[in-house]
Amino acid sequence: MEWKNFDLLESYKKLEAMKETVNVKELMSGENGAKRVKEYQIPMASGMTYCYAAKQVDDKLLEVLQELADEAELADKYKALYNGAVINTGEKRLVLHQLTRGQLGDDVVADGINKREFYIAQQTRAAEFANKVHAGEIVNENGEKFTTAVQIGIGGSDLGPRALYLSLENWAKVNGTHKMEARFISNVDPDDASAVLASIDVAHSIFVLVSKSGTTLETLTNEAFVKNALTSAGLDPSKHMVAVTSETSPLAGNADYLDSFYMDDFIGGRYSSTSAVGGVILSLAFGPEVFGRILKGCAEEDELAKNADIKKNPAMLDALIGVYERNFLGYSSTAVLPYSQGLSRFPAHLQQLDMESNGKSVNRFGEKIDYVTGPAIFGEPGTNGQHSFYQLLHQGTGIIPLQFVGFKHNQMDNDVVIQGSTSQQKLCANVAAQIMAFACGKDDENCNKYFEGGRPSSIIVGDQLNPETLGTLLAHFENKVMFQGFVWNINSFDQEGVQLGKVLAKKVLAKETDGALTEYSKLLGIF
Amino acid sequence: MEWKNFDLLESYKKLEAMKETVNVKELMSGENGAKRVKEYQIPMASGMTYCYAAKQVDDKLLEVLQELADEAELADKYKALYNGAVINTGEKRLVLHQLTRGQLGDDVVADGINKREFYIAQQTRAAEFANKVHAGEIVNENGEKFTTAVQIGIGGSDLGPRALYLSLENWAKVNGTHKMEARFISNVDPDDASAVLASIDVAHSIFVLVSKSGTTLETLTNEAFVKNALTSAGLDPSKHMVAVTSETSPLAGNADYLDSFYMDDFIGGRYSSTSAVGGVILSLAFGPEVFGRILKGCAEEDELAKNADIKKNPAMLDALIGVYERNFLGYSSTAVLPYSQGLSRFPAHLQQLDMESNGKSVNRFGEKIDYVTGPAIFGEPGTNGQHSFYQLLHQGTGIIPLQFVGFKHNQMDNDVVIQGSTSQQKLCANVAAQIMAFACGKDDENCNKYFEGGRPSSIIVGDQLNPETLGTLLAHFENKVMFQGFVWNINSFDQEGVQLGKVLAKKVLAKETDGALTEYSKLLGIF
Repeated sequence: MEWKNFDLLESYKKLEAMKETVNVKELMSGENGAKRVKEYQIPMASGMTYCYAAKQVDDKLLEVLQELADEAELADKYKALYNGAVINTGEKRLVLHQLTRGQLGDDVVADGINKREFYIAQQTRAAEFANKVHAGEIVNENGEKFTTAVQIGIGGSDLGPRALYLSLENWAKVNGTHKMEARFISNVDPDDASAVLASIDVAHSIFVLVSKSGTTLETLTNEAFVKNALTSAGLDPSKHMVAVTSETSPLAGNADYLDSFYMDDFIGGRYSSTSAVGGVILSLAFGPEVFGRILKGCAEEDELAKNADIKKNPAMLDALIGVYERNFLGYSSTAVLPYSQGLSRFPAHLQQLDMESNGKSVNRFGEKIDYVTGPAIFGEPGTNGQHSFYQLLHQGTGIIPLQFVGFKHNQMDNDVVIQGSTSQQKLCANVAAQIMAFACGKDDENCNKYFEGGRPSSIIVGDQLNPETLGTLLAHFENKVMFQGFVWNINSFDQEGVQLGKVLAKKVLAKETDGALTEYSKLLGIF
Repeated sequence: MEWKNFDLLESYKKLEAMKETVNVKELMSGENGAKRVKEYQIPMASGMTYCYAAKQVDDKLLEVLQELADEAELADKYKALYNGAVINTGEKRLVLHQLTRGQLGDDVVADGINKREFYIAQQTRAAEFANKVHAGEIVNENGEKFTTAVQIGIGGSDLGPRALYLSLENWAKVNGTHKMEARFISNVDPDDASAVLASIDVAHSIFVLVSKSGTTLETLTNEAFVKNALTSAGLDPSKHMVAVTSETSPLAGNADYLDSFYMDDFIGGRYSSTSAVGGVILSLAFGPEVFGRILKGCAEEDELAKNADIKKNPAMLDALIGVYERNFLGYSSTAVLPYSQGLSRFPAHLQQLDMESNGKSVNRFGEKIDYVTGPAIFGEPGTNGQHSFYQLLHQGTGIIPLQFVGFKHNQMDNDVVIQGSTSQQKLCANVAAQIMAFACGKDDENCNKYFEGGRPSSIIVGDQLNPETLGTLLAHFENKVMFQGFVWNINSFDQEGVQLGKVLAKKVLAKETDGALTEYSKLLGIF
């Protein structure tokens, strides 16, 4: 197996010669378009489908993308990853988030510990803890049940778990598996913690403090904030707080907490939703069984991602089409457009996942590269986005590739028929309509009403947003980002770019600044 | 006054010759950097400051930007707009949102009506209505006070009012002006309305139905959803609902509503927060006095925007720097990064405001243009974003200009000292640190820890996020977008790009499809 820069590959040169050869508008029109939609879709896990008919690809291009997959040894690199190779070269770490949801290959043993067993043990502990809280065996000082769980964390300890919670909150309420309300405190802005604390009953709340290192300044600050609130209410913080951290952190096995649950250095923050980082809060909110179903949805998708054949590997195919769009068609951002209110914060999670993983300018050996890497990611749920930024997507001067997500059924049991259709039918009709409007556009003598078309999109469709499909979605995008990182020959698992700001912020707080930094500090009223 | 395409201007050619001449990294380093920060800031309304020191501009370039402002007659065009010219050429409409908050020039009379008086009359009616609701003079069927106000609207009837509500919710709670809870229903996904309805006490809720045309499908569908819920609870919908609409819409003066409040065709959805669209819900939530203070913050900023001197006109300067970045430095997106939890949804509002206004490929006469227009806009509150997508902003292969917003004081009265500083100080230290990290970067022999720097940003600083500063922020960005539209010679006030999708969605619902649209409809389970 060889780690080579993308632009050294034969398939890179082939792709470069194939820029803008595919006319989506033409290919998607008429009966050929119908045929194309049927042919250009492949199954995902959990009964979902990935359809790429409206992407700027054809059979010839797909062949070269397959060559690229083979030449870049994507399947082998994934195999190396899940078998425990040091894929995170910068930090010299294994990358094991897939192992939290399934045994994909060999046993992975590090520091004498079978990691799969370790992750399962933590899941079991979190499950037992959640069950005891739900059963009223773990209670507050007055012997009363806890009703609310509050996650204190930032970045990967916040965005993923929060997005997953919101994705299933209403589903769980309808399905009788909503055990506790969940809330999230993340920002160091004191108003974030204040507002959350004001909205809950602290006496019946359990706080889940999440920091791998146990040193994240925002999180420790918000912990102090919460402890103050508990103490002011005459409560004992140690009876209201658990920690999720690494075994070597100052938070581990600390008597200040009811209990501690462990992750390790082999799971990056943005990949940690399926570890204890997401497991504790989601098991508290929905019960361990629902969390297990999310893991199952991930595991099946992780299995699919093993296929070396891109037509049988939606994450790999999605990744390769994305690379083609980025490096050869020059598109610099991607919009994620879930037609499901439950996925309202899923784009924010994907924004971190993708931009923090692949927003890199050096290869995995720390050498500067000469091609572009990860795009900017943004998105809002449809149909809201349609009444907002879609104007630019349809008629702006640049092209932004689109990732739609849709479901046949909504989550709650309430719907209404207006003008002959349900809201859910309207929602789905809109996503179908948008894909075609973007792909084929519309001729009009009035240039202002003219739609150029040729604006590429793909869609992932599921039956309903539930634990399994949610897990599949999560794993799909994690694996897509991973494969793109392999193609670009970058390390998708470190984040050195976040360090400098932290260092300078500390200087400001220590008043050890000079020059412009001093002036900005004055402008902001710190000095 | 002449409306000319941007690339026909002399200053266009001059700017084209000045690509990438300014080295931010160098200019922001050392004591020169300190001097630059002090010099490159100008006052905004409400005591705020716009600082552009970390932008890729110098005095020479600013001179040419001033020439551009003069040559494009930006101040004159703004004057024409607020004096009632038909600036929205596509729809042949005046553009009068500034008139909702102040008389900037001549009286504007349309259809025999003085429009300023009309807008004030609607504000007064909304204020009286809100006061009566708060005083218990307008009550539910059981004579009980309403406690919650729910806006039903989408796009501009949702994003702006929602962002403003969230911006002041906690401020109002601390300052004793929080009169009612506000909620928002927008998406046609039935789970959106279901979840909101499940979270409120419908018997004590008043619903504000907002649709200018009275025909927005999503909004009418959600209205039916809400009416069902009211009827099921044994309540009379006409006692729980008001309409905000145009006087010619089917919703106007309709006995199905407690009352109707009016807007007109001269205020576009995304510019409508200061009309009755925002006025009714915000007056209900915070009282008319607070809404009046928002308008005051806008009006002062609108006045500032009259200045032909870009050094005295922050919106115009911001606009011109943005144009330079977009057209000559080739940056295709902009990140909005408010360091204030209250502004959590403000980027989503700006995303609509900017991308729907300036995502255009034809000039105001409907002719195709040959230069790029509006960028993609996205953002999340700091410090959350720092732990997410900032990696790409710092070390990605492309440059994304940054718009920071910061405040010296937080909104709520709670803060905590950890490691010698308050949370608010940490928040502000982080924004100062980030600006410098982006501007100056950091050398390192390890390429993985190397920060190139030269990544441009500006910052808007205020004392506190309150009604006045919020209004100023809102108007600043509206005016920025307007000036950019003038430079690009496009119509920033129509949105033809949203039409095609609507037409196709109707075809799907009527089952009048063929080709690929049929297949997508099947895939999504509609057929």
